[in-house]
Amino acid sequence: MKKNIKIAYIGGGSKQWARVFMSDLAVAEDLSGEIALYDIDLEAARRNAEIGARINRNPAANSKFTYRVCPRIEDALENAGFVIISILPGTFREMRSDVHAPEKYGVYQSVGDTVGPGGILRAMRTVPIYEGFARKIRDICPNAWVINLTNPMSICIRALYDVFPQIKAFGCCHEVFHTQTFLTRVLKELRGTDISRRDIYTDACGINHFTWITEAKYQDIDLLSLLPEFMDRFYEEGYYEGADRFAFRTDPFAYGNKVKLDMYRNYGVLPAAGDRHLAEFVSNLWYLKDPETVRAWQFGLTTVDFREKQQSDRIAESIAMADGTMPFPVEKSTEEAADLIKALLGFKTIVSNVNLPNQGQMPQMPLGSIVETNCVFSNDQVKPVVSRKLPSAVANLVYRNCVNIDTTYEGIKERDLSKLFAAFVNQPLCSSLTVGQCRELFGEMCRSTREYLDPYFDLDHYFLY
Amino acid sequence: MKKNIKIAYIGGGSKQWARVFMSDLAVAEDLSGEIALYDIDLEAARRNAEIGARINRNPAANSKFTYRVCPRIEDALENAGFVIISILPGTFREMRSDVHAPEKYGVYQSVGDTVGPGGILRAMRTVPIYEGFARKIRDICPNAWVINLTNPMSICIRALYDVFPQIKAFGCCHEVFHTQTFLTRVLKELRGTDISRRDIYTDACGINHFTWITEAKYQDIDLLSLLPEFMDRFYEEGYYEGADRFAFRTDPFAYGNKVKLDMYRNYGVLPAAGDRHLAEFVSNLWYLKDPETVRAWQFGLTTVDFREKQQSDRIAESIAMADGTMPFPVEKSTEEAADLIKALLGFKTIVSNVNLPNQGQMPQMPLGSIVETNCVFSNDQVKPVVSRKLPSAVANLVYRNCVNIDTTYEGIKERDLSKLFAAFVNQPLCSSLTVGQCRELFGEMCRSTREYLDPYFDLDHYFLY
Amino acid sequence: MKKNIKIAYIGGGSKQWARVFMSDLAVAEDLSGEIALYDIDLEAARRNAEIGARINRNPAANSKFTYRVCPRIEDALENAGFVIISILPGTFREMRSDVHAPEKYGVYQSVGDTVGPGGILRAMRTVPIYEGFARKIRDICPNAWVINLTNPMSICIRALYDVFPQIKAFGCCHEVFHTQTFLTRVLKELRGTDISRRDIYTDACGINHFTWITEAKYQDIDLLSLLPEFMDRFYEEGYYEGADRFAFRTDPFAYGNKVKLDMYRNYGVLPAAGDRHLAEFVSNLWYLKDPETVRAWQFGLTTVDFREKQQSDRIAESIAMADGTMPFPVEKSTEEAADLIKALLGFKTIVSNVNLPNQGQMPQMPLGSIVETNCVFSNDQVKPVVSRKLPSAVANLVYRNCVNIDTTYEGIKERDLSKLFAAFVNQPLCSSLTVGQCRELFGEMCRSTREYLDPYFDLDHYFLY
Amino acid sequence: MKKNIKIAYIGGGSKQWARVFMSDLAVAEDLSGEIALYDIDLEAARRNAEIGARINRNPAANSKFTYRVCPRIEDALENAGFVIISILPGTFREMRSDVHAPEKYGVYQSVGDTVGPGGILRAMRTVPIYEGFARKIRDICPNAWVINLTNPMSICIRALYDVFPQIKAFGCCHEVFHTQTFLTRVLKELRGTDISRRDIYTDACGINHFTWITEAKYQDIDLLSLLPEFMDRFYEEGYYEGADRFAFRTDPFAYGNKVKLDMYRNYGVLPAAGDRHLAEFVSNLWYLKDPETVRAWQFGLTTVDFREKQQSDRIAESIAMADGTMPFPVEKSTEEAADLIKALLGFKTIVSNVNLPNQGQMPQMPLGSIVETNCVFSNDQVKPVVSRKLPSAVANLVYRNCVNIDTTYEGIKERDLSKLFAAFVNQPLCSSLTVGQCRELFGEMCRSTREYLDPYFDLDHYFLY
Repeated sequence: MKKNIKIAYIGGGSKQWARVFMSDLAVAEDLSGEIALYDIDLEAARRNAEIGARINRNPAANSKFTYRVCPRIEDALENAGFVIISILPGTFREMRSDVHAPEKYGVYQSVGDTVGPGGILRAMRTVPIYEGFARKIRDICPNAWVINLTNPMSICIRALYDVFPQIKAFGCCHEVFHTQTFLTRVLKELRGTDISRRDIYTDACGINHFTWITEAKYQDIDLLSLLPEFMDRFYEEGYYEGADRFAFRTDPFAYGNKVKLDMYRNYGVLPAAGDRHLAEFVSNLWYLKDPETVRAWQFGLTTVDFREKQQSDRIAESIAMADGTMPFPVEKSTEEAADLIKALLGFKTIVSNVNLPNQGQMPQMPLGSIVETNCVFSNDQVKPVVSRKLPSAVANLVYRNCVNIDTTYEGIKERDLSKLFAAFVNQPLCSSLTVGQCRELFGEMCRSTREYLDPYFDLDHYFLY
Repeated sequence: MKKNIKIAYIGGGSKQWARVFMSDLAVAEDLSGEIALYDIDLEAARRNAEIGARINRNPAANSKFTYRVCPRIEDALENAGFVIISILPGTFREMRSDVHAPEKYGVYQSVGDTVGPGGILRAMRTVPIYEGFARKIRDICPNAWVINLTNPMSICIRALYDVFPQIKAFGCCHEVFHTQTFLTRVLKELRGTDISRRDIYTDACGINHFTWITEAKYQDIDLLSLLPEFMDRFYEEGYYEGADRFAFRTDPFAYGNKVKLDMYRNYGVLPAAGDRHLAEFVSNLWYLKDPETVRAWQFGLTTVDFREKQQSDRIAESIAMADGTMPFPVEKSTEEAADLIKALLGFKTIVSNVNLPNQGQMPQMPLGSIVETNCVFSNDQVKPVVSRKLPSAVANLVYRNCVNIDTTYEGIKERDLSKLFAAFVNQPLCSSLTVGQCRELFGEMCRSTREYLDPYFDLDHYFLY
Repeated sequence: MKKNIKIAYIGGGSKQWARVFMSDLAVAEDLSGEIALYDIDLEAARRNAEIGARINRNPAANSKFTYRVCPRIEDALENAGFVIISILPGTFREMRSDVHAPEKYGVYQSVGDTVGPGGILRAMRTVPIYEGFARKIRDICPNAWVINLTNPMSICIRALYDVFPQIKAFGCCHEVFHTQTFLTRVLKELRGTDISRRDIYTDACGINHFTWITEAKYQDIDLLSLLPEFMDRFYEEGYYEGADRFAFRTDPFAYGNKVKLDMYRNYGVLPAAGDRHLAEFVSNLWYLKDPETVRAWQFGLTTVDFREKQQSDRIAESIAMADGTMPFPVEKSTEEAADLIKALLGFKTIVSNVNLPNQGQMPQMPLGSIVETNCVFSNDQVKPVVSRKLPSAVANLVYRNCVNIDTTYEGIKERDLSKLFAAFVNQPLCSSLTVGQCRELFGEMCRSTREYLDPYFDLDHYFLY
Repeated sequence: MKKNIKIAYIGGGSKQWARVFMSDLAVAEDLSGEIALYDIDLEAARRNAEIGARINRNPAANSKFTYRVCPRIEDALENAGFVIISILPGTFREMRSDVHAPEKYGVYQSVGDTVGPGGILRAMRTVPIYEGFARKIRDICPNAWVINLTNPMSICIRALYDVFPQIKAFGCCHEVFHTQTFLTRVLKELRGTDISRRDIYTDACGINHFTWITEAKYQDIDLLSLLPEFMDRFYEEGYYEGADRFAFRTDPFAYGNKVKLDMYRNYGVLPAAGDRHLAEFVSNLWYLKDPETVRAWQFGLTTVDFREKQQSDRIAESIAMADGTMPFPVEKSTEEAADLIKALLGFKTIVSNVNLPNQGQMPQMPLGSIVETNCVFSNDQVKPVVSRKLPSAVANLVYRNCVNIDTTYEGIKERDLSKLFAAFVNQPLCSSLTVGQCRELFGEMCRSTREYLDPYFDLDHYFLY
């Protein structure tokens, strides 16, 4: 018997993740219903609705969904049992400022959307939007499950819970999955055994994009204990689970895992995100000092030029998929959102890592801060699992970033630029800057994206003062 | 491929639980190995080894185990991957004092092995033995998983972790399972739907024998919300999930769930243990005032006469099973220990409730106290799940007992009779006694079991002083 | 140089404490200003204003204050630097129900205004009034220091902070002072040394009327260590620091300290309140079983007849003092409120015990619960001092009452009678009652004081249901 | 009546602080007794004994003390009521490595004894010595009050409590006093009012040398609120409370308070230590980038050449004071140790800031970490006062250092060089270094002081590995 559900998709014009999700839903056998696509880019939402209609006609689609484009968010949320949020706050113009403005000061960012100068400015644009989402959900569909995909993840989740404490929201991210896959490769290379990431059990905890695996087992094998041997063979030349080891030269999403393994060597536990994310949570002089250093560590800086190019390619793809000139394979992806939905509908019990307010699952972090740990998903339930303690040196690294994020959130919530500046100055990515340089850079980044900030922050007053 | 394991069974002469466990292991398809039975009653252990051998010859046995009787505990523990502990501290003579001595003072106990005067005295005999177990496990098989079945559960687990903090121990109890079964009956009676307890998801937390279900769902149905309707129909006459509603008149393990439902009515959440256990955690004047009150609430007092009779019946059964004159059915029971072992060996992931030190899973109880909550069992891992908060009135009831247990443990650990007396006086079951009466009763119970206490406590000095 | 202050006195018609306070202010050399008396009994406030005027004319008065009667609370609060609150919620009619209604059920209360059935009902009348006070203070004089004297103390303070978290409020009670005086008597009796309570240092912590002294030193002498010797000489016959040992026979505020010393004997730390208060925090069967038991423990039940008589005597006194026919001595009392005001004005630093929300000063109690510990009073500051830990058995007694109080407060705040009932049932003073009897008694007490409850609680709906 | 006390002075050959302390004791009117001087430099202890004898002969000495030189620490501790510890772990040779070795890597330290590379190496030499002290105190004088003056303060206190949890130890530091004096100057400059630091009330909290004043009041004046006006007038040119504003050019202990005020500007609360200490708790690129930056911020680098010169001057002074050729003024200093001793003896109650394990006084830091807050000193009691919360951005800065210190301590306790390296890498003073550079520098510093480390750490194994 199929369960009938309504999913509201905020940011339903998404150029990539939406397709993956629609495909995963289509192959799920137990579901059917309606997907309401809301986006400020109405045209993009319409294209996804057309792609959805084509998926329904694909014989591989076990389930059919009605795709509806909603110009008003209220209509999308009405009667929704699930809400997906995946938006881009601002345009590439603002992202260009986030990512590249700090370079003049010698601060390079490999992603620029989570922490660091870019993460803070992006958060300043995002939180006011999320405050609105939380109020709408509270008023229209308070019992819906809300799945967030937008970065900065922790701050988005924090805003949702702060505005509407009873919200049933969590944040999904695939970075830990990639590290689990990396561990399966370690086993393959050293022992010849070929397994899937779902065959191993990991205990992971931390904050989004800076989560750490403290235990990883496949059958009787402690996978972390294999790493020294793996490093003897592969550390020098680098190793990438997603493609060949030179991929990072052309693909800014690729990396050689040298940062990850260097951290493992120093701390004895394994950070569970791509190297491009990890590098942003520690001193910028370690792995991001300059483009040469980045290259030596075998990862890349994701430029906004690249992102713009990627975006226009994807739009072209969407158009082609919508009009049928490009085939769209309907198949199970490696993402988990559709599985989690099935667990929440009571079809099964899953343990997976997501982002939630700390209720005790990470005793080393402040209660209420957003942390990423294993959680049990079952019938209408997400319950966090108490994680193993991090070594104190790692806990300190995580805590610093966790409190920075909390301070950033408070600064935005209270529209307090001096609190935001305190968070800015304390970013590990600003390690090479003096307080004076930070002040200059922060001012410049605020001013160049002021179109999105002026409704909320009194920039003129603060920067004159 | 079968996994080869060695299980040390401390208390391997067990008259009942051992058979169930041996049978559950035999039907498990993935296991084989050795079970080392250690017991101070060597003869009983030998009978179980013979029953084991007969099980191996039963065609329903998917797995074969070698049963070995070990007169020395060290031999049983050597190379063990799992250790089961299920012992009776002292004899029926001491149990008679635990359960019946307080009756002279008007204090009736329905079980007498967890809390109350009987629970404290039993703990005083048990902890010194467990201190020895913990040291042996630390020295001989520190990586073994230790499954405790002995009462008082919380105090046994506490002693194991206190002596050997790295121990991988947890405590299993089936009381919550029975309450889950009760909930399936509620659904059956009201809606006609027939399900198994494994089909529902519950969030349970508390302390052993005083655990509370805060959420229970079957598909879209909130099972707790059915209780008012259920009570309208069944409260007056009583309802028992294990047999007919009059069973309590002859079977002291049976009950009418009137205590449980009365607590639900007062607190809005459902206590998850048999009524005979629940009644011992609150004022003795509520449900245990006198035998008539007990009968009116439709449960029974488990007398030691009854237990002695039961025991001798079981010994006769064991003998008959061992020599083959009584057939022994090899089949899956409702107990979970064998399943948990399989999960710990990496065969599957299970969420089930067990007793562990509080690491954050019950933020309302002190860290380090032993609590019972859901836990995730997977490959060589038991990780507690953060439970939903109890209503403050219930948290207070649980906390009182939790601290009593902690005080009892500390008193035993420090061989401090005045601390033990403070815990004694504060027992809800002693609500009808004055401090002076408590002092008299405590003295009497200590003296009448002094054979087991003298090696550890200076009774003469304390009671003279 | 005198500091000029305005004090708003809510309940300014107080028949006793107001006079003490006016006298203490008059002898203080550094102060002057205005005292605004607000009371719903306007006449009583006027009498106090006249007494104040007479005090000003007394040569012993170092400081002059203007006394003004304010028929509107807003006028009293306007520009106030200090607010005293000392009110009686309801009339003797309601108090009669609080104190005596439970007697039919065998529940005797020696005070009936803090915990137990009487404490809960009194709280139900008081909190809604305090919610109003907190809002007025927030709006009119948010920076004023608020000194609460009304019982139930903890719940009054909780309500003030809950409605207005930035309030600068604390609660004063003299019970600990009396116990300090008792300790000076212990020294006098055993060693002949005559000292004042201010000469000794004590560490006290707990909740109001159930605070415990964990350390008490005079010079090199550990005063608690003297108690066994003291008990050998005085325990049997009783000992009262306030008058002769038989005073309790006629004065219900007197007692023989037998309850206090019995608790000391059981727990090793000394409870710091009058026996009549202490007895209400433990099972009613211990010290309050029936009037004979109370008499045997050498304290008394404070009847409402007695209170009415006392009240009319005091009114007569007030009238005589106001018209000058009865002289009023202007002298320093043993109360501390005037001293604390001087410390808050920056004249000195004082360490004294008061009631405040727990911010870490009692790590064994929940954060946010109201606890009584030492605090440092200095210039515009009250900072709690971290107290020594209570023995776990005592912590458990205190915790039970602390959570009962929290549950009572929540129940009132949320106007939730079922939560209030859960707190009612869990009162140690209800130990001899079944849940059914509790339900009956609670209903009766609610109904007989419904005039004050109906505006806030839906009694009919709850008690029918 | 004078109290007779015995004080053991570990490091009794101290060239400066000992004299101050002896003088403060001499002017105290209520004390007399014996001071046992223990030092590995026996000659220096003898000189101090001679200076002590001369103090006794000075007419300004109200109290006489017997000075005794003890070649064995056990004799010094025997019967001691107080123990002062003030030692230098290692020689100037090791200090030269601590302070100057990092300069080759561009890391400048203004003090080098608390945190940063120098702080860690100094801690590695100090903790093993303190472990020995703690054991001796436990065995010989467990009830003595222990006053620590040695740096790194936090780690010394931590070691004492970790080895002997019942120890009555605390750590004294004068840095907060200087900042209080600075605040009196602010008042003087702006309002013309001349007061002493004891006239103001401050709430200070943090960790040693990185404590923050969150409130400071003199009468009705909020002193922190004066700082913006003060900065308008004095920030540019600098201001030093200890001498003229150019003192920093020649005196490395002098500073212009520009760092302190810059931090105040960024965070809204005032750090309470000399600028040379403050600069070491944040990125080395902020205030310590190179000698020019240091000079621009108006403070100095304390070179070991300077310390050696200072030391030899002081020895010459000591010799001259001991033989009477240099007069020694007997007068009250600004230090507080003698006052605290008097409070602990019951002569008075003092509130002052000292270092203690966190028991709840700083809810934002981990329990057990060493924090500096106000404490109440009275008869045989030191009780911490719960401090006001730090702004979250400041809490984060403090927390990072606090956990670094905890990790350093754990690393030393466990003799675990990899844990120490994790603490090393995370030092704010190492912000300009890569992990590789940190590894090199750490190795070099360990090797060059190995004489003191080899008994405890397996350097060869770690640095080869």
